[in-house]
Amino acid sequence: MAKHRVVVVGGGFGGLHAGKALIDPNIEVTLLDRRNYHLFQPLLYQVATGGLSPGEIAAPLRAIFEWQKNLRVLMTDVNGFDIERKQVLTKMGEIPYDSLVLAAGAKTTYFGNDKWAAIAPSLKNIEDATKLRARLLNAFEEAEKENDPDKRRALLTFLIVGGGPTGVELAGALSEIANDALKEDFRSFDPEDARIMILDAGPRILSAFSEKLAKAAARQLIELNVLCRSGVRVLEVSEQGAKVSVDGREEFIPSRTVIWAAGVTGSPLGKALAEVAKLELLRGGKLAVEPDCSLPGHPEIFVIGDLAHFQHGLEKPLPGVCQTAMQMGDYVGDLISKRLEGKTKPAFRYWDKGNMAVIGRNRAIAAVGGFEFSGYFAWLLWAFVHVLYLVNFQSRIIVAIRWGFDYFSFNRGARLITQPGPPAQES
Amino acid sequence: MAKHRVVVVGGGFGGLHAGKALIDPNIEVTLLDRRNYHLFQPLLYQVATGGLSPGEIAAPLRAIFEWQKNLRVLMTDVNGFDIERKQVLTKMGEIPYDSLVLAAGAKTTYFGNDKWAAIAPSLKNIEDATKLRARLLNAFEEAEKENDPDKRRALLTFLIVGGGPTGVELAGALSEIANDALKEDFRSFDPEDARIMILDAGPRILSAFSEKLAKAAARQLIELNVLCRSGVRVLEVSEQGAKVSVDGREEFIPSRTVIWAAGVTGSPLGKALAEVAKLELLRGGKLAVEPDCSLPGHPEIFVIGDLAHFQHGLEKPLPGVCQTAMQMGDYVGDLISKRLEGKTKPAFRYWDKGNMAVIGRNRAIAAVGGFEFSGYFAWLLWAFVHVLYLVNFQSRIIVAIRWGFDYFSFNRGARLITQPGPPAQES
Repeated sequence: MAKHRVVVVGGGFGGLHAGKALIDPNIEVTLLDRRNYHLFQPLLYQVATGGLSPGEIAAPLRAIFEWQKNLRVLMTDVNGFDIERKQVLTKMGEIPYDSLVLAAGAKTTYFGNDKWAAIAPSLKNIEDATKLRARLLNAFEEAEKENDPDKRRALLTFLIVGGGPTGVELAGALSEIANDALKEDFRSFDPEDARIMILDAGPRILSAFSEKLAKAAARQLIELNVLCRSGVRVLEVSEQGAKVSVDGREEFIPSRTVIWAAGVTGSPLGKALAEVAKLELLRGGKLAVEPDCSLPGHPEIFVIGDLAHFQHGLEKPLPGVCQTAMQMGDYVGDLISKRLEGKTKPAFRYWDKGNMAVIGRNRAIAAVGGFEFSGYFAWLLWAFVHVLYLVNFQSRIIVAIRWGFDYFSFNRGARLITQPGPPAQES
Repeated sequence: MAKHRVVVVGGGFGGLHAGKALIDPNIEVTLLDRRNYHLFQPLLYQVATGGLSPGEIAAPLRAIFEWQKNLRVLMTDVNGFDIERKQVLTKMGEIPYDSLVLAAGAKTTYFGNDKWAAIAPSLKNIEDATKLRARLLNAFEEAEKENDPDKRRALLTFLIVGGGPTGVELAGALSEIANDALKEDFRSFDPEDARIMILDAGPRILSAFSEKLAKAAARQLIELNVLCRSGVRVLEVSEQGAKVSVDGREEFIPSRTVIWAAGVTGSPLGKALAEVAKLELLRGGKLAVEPDCSLPGHPEIFVIGDLAHFQHGLEKPLPGVCQTAMQMGDYVGDLISKRLEGKTKPAFRYWDKGNMAVIGRNRAIAAVGGFEFSGYFAWLLWAFVHVLYLVNFQSRIIVAIRWGFDYFSFNRGARLITQPGPPAQES
């Protein structure tokens, strides 16, 4: 009997869990990703702020699946799908499937202002993180050389657009860089003079959390000297700063570093699949899925993670977080295996394990099982959960140790400015 | 009394040690580097082969000098010198000095064939190392997708040009990647089929070591399946492989990965200084220095490390290794301080602490204090010395732990393919 061929597109949390659930030796799994590693995205902001090195939050996909001999990893770009002939179209040719799992995730969106991307970097992959790290550290380096007080002020003003977890995490970490790690490092200014501002268009930051927790977060941010401004819409971003609208009034904030943490949209592969399946692409670039995460009219195609719009009987669609992707991956992998045995599975049910955001050293907020708490205990829980979830055992230990050091030394060891391209001169 | 101004150009081993020796509060030190970190170059090959992350072998210069308040670090490009007016010419303007320490190090040379740089990457800085890492890992990824046996063979053939310590370290590490770390990772070929070859133009590899130790190294390389070929001159390098000349006979070796580890030459700043001081630039881009490491005719200018040609009474000039740079830095820093007190110092004397090269797991060669040994004990000594010398305490611990894991797991955790430039598509 020919083996059942499953193609999984994407090696993020969803694809990883789907792959791991597909251990039946009668199934032949191909996992496609354009990168050779799985990235632990929740800690990406630590790379951007010099706390961790890229290798510490990324694990090679091949190492993860080393011993799962029914699964092969191919590093390639996926261009689209031929769902009639059941082929995934890739840069290296067509790859046939019997079942397809699309777990291609989301990417940053500038809501139509794509030219802002060059000015206001975002944070979605390792290259983003090392570039952002260079930008942040360079601003301090330039300030050390600058004599004009206005220009120096603009160099030391950091605007973060978007008050979701990523924006809050970045703001908190940036404040700790300025107030602790770099404290003694400069001779012509005091890094504590840095101004860090979160600009959010909505009525308050952290809209995925309760108002009580969002307030607790705002209080902790104030303690870190971070200014949170809500109801602020960004009209224009330039090398000189951001033009914003506050209550219909326009304002210009001079800043040499604007960071974009305002929104994500589904991978273009979602759109490609919607087109060939003649389905509607929903807001945020998502695809509505059936209760078993399959595509309407295509029981052999599954869409999971950030690309899936899953609502069935729920008040709100499932949030685009790691947990959703992981649980959908587990479910779909298991469902495909069960189907081969002629069985089926009840509809997918999401188990909300809780929600957290870290703000800084000893500062976080958490909502777990009906309980809400903030501050030191929330931070401990956050650190524990994140180290625990890091896929690769080695990274887990190293991250724990590095954090231990940073905690007691108030330092950040990985604050390197690395640049693409050959250096102009050695020194 | 105005303070004595010292400008140190370069934050490598020489500049670091000079800066650390200049603690006299009557001296105002400016350390210039185009990067914001000190790089522990002896372990760079580990980054290129996925054993360590960049942040683990680099320490921010500002962190190193955090508490030395008479020293400021400026991140800028040095363009040249005006030695009449005692100014260092930089991208951010002129910086005046009373004493100048040039410690700008060396860079890779392709011996006039600069166009090979794009084809055969070298290993001198972090960008080189992450690019080389991507090249090496990509070759295996491509091999997994290749069906043509000849093309696959070329993808799995790695040519290392140059049999010095860097070439030997890279070859050994690459062999361990193929034979251990990647062993179970691919489905369409066996990584053990990789062919790794060192091509050296001289009569034998590791010419800085005794013939006995070089032979021991060659034997250990053979155990790792690395082929050492001496007397091989590279005539041409292309995307398809290398054309070489062996005993006057031409030969073409198909290979998709040629690595350049064949030579270094002094930083262009050495040439710039030679021109304004009207001194001869020696072979290898070096400048002859006086017994106190100063430039002939300019007692206020010191040249140390890889740029200095120091021979005085010695059979051979001092080697371009870390030890030379560190000891010269210590000496010059101390001499400048002494001079301010109206004192002087006897001529610089190099203390040869020994020489080592690592070949792989449990394999190395070492020559220390008249004793020569190879194998396990040499490897232990190598590992001990290198962890000990890592500048930054945190890195030392992390490197030790990571190595501990890699040693027992035969794995390499940091094997990421990261690319400059924005990704074409998220997945």
